[in-house]
Amino acid sequence: MTTHLEVQWITGFVDGEGCFSIEVNKPKNGNPQIQVALTVVQNQTDEQVLYALKDYFGCGSVTDNKKDDYEKRRMWRVKSVQHFIEKIIPFFEKHKLKTKRRIEFQRVRSICLALERGDHKDPIKFEKMQRMAELYRIGGTMTRKLKRMSTEERNKLKDELTVLDKEFNVIIE
Amino acid sequence: MTTHLEVQWITGFVDGEGCFSIEVNKPKNGNPQIQVALTVVQNQTDEQVLYALKDYFGCGSVTDNKKDDYEKRRMWRVKSVQHFIEKIIPFFEKHKLKTKRRIEFQRVRSICLALERGDHKDPIKFEKMQRMAELYRIGGTMTRKLKRMSTEERNKLKDELTVLDKEFNVIIE
Repeated sequence: MTTHLEVQWITGFVDGEGCFSIEVNKPKNGNPQIQVALTVVQNQTDEQVLYALKDYFGCGSVTDNKKDDYEKRRMWRVKSVQHFIEKIIPFFEKHKLKTKRRIEFQRVRSICLALERGDHKDPIKFEKMQRMAELYRIGGTMTRKLKRMSTEERNKLKDELTVLDKEFNVIIE
Repeated sequence: MTTHLEVQWITGFVDGEGCFSIEVNKPKNGNPQIQVALTVVQNQTDEQVLYALKDYFGCGSVTDNKKDDYEKRRMWRVKSVQHFIEKIIPFFEKHKLKTKRRIEFQRVRSICLALERGDHKDPIKFEKMQRMAELYRIGGTMTRKLKRMSTEERNKLKDELTVLDKEFNVIIE
């Protein structure tokens, strides 16, 4: 039996456990690509909530995340820009996140809309999208890098991000 | 303005970020005590959700958790058994958690009910409560300890926990 999920439970759970990411993939042969994702990781014992999320949104896939002797971690991940546009973005526009995840969602949303418009085909815009992905990563998971920076350096990055947020119409509420 | 929280958002957020704990405090002078807690930690930038939780439940307190150069972590924590009995337990009995947090909640609930009954005044029962706290910690945060154990040792601990779960009427659904 699939676990039933209420919309507000999903919002609270993603506020707690979700991760919106923007990455730049640089394949050996071929052009770099912007990759967005929403990822939720759980121990295998709780994988039923991952399948319930997959069922609810009707997209993404559940795969292994990390393995060790006594526990296996699993993740639900949505990577398709089309699925973001059709399913993920409308959901979180309607059911607002309450933590810093909200602004992360807004940045990923803006990059999805830019990709849908074809901005990445313009070299100048693509460079800005790449820089957005880089700054997003520094502000998110690369906290160690931030730690080593001076206040001045951090403020410079913040200012740069503010300019890019405007460029990509990121809604800061 | 206080952030408005829906009950299902709270349930989803606690499924993701909450931590139910059972500890044994051993003061230098005085008898050991069983201490239960529900803790939610956030970066300071998101402390408004911690105050919203405090307001919603009408108990617990918001304090500093950890500090460093560029970010400060804050936590909402409920420790009073009376507040568990009156507020936390009825809430999560009504709005069921969907992950392994549900069984953690059931164990903490059982220890609260035992403390309310005065079980801790009986030395034999107190010893069992202490052991429950120890096994609970090993199964929860002390994953490194579990990692070093053989399958046999882990199964032995599991069996012991099953016996204690029965002793304290832990509801395993």
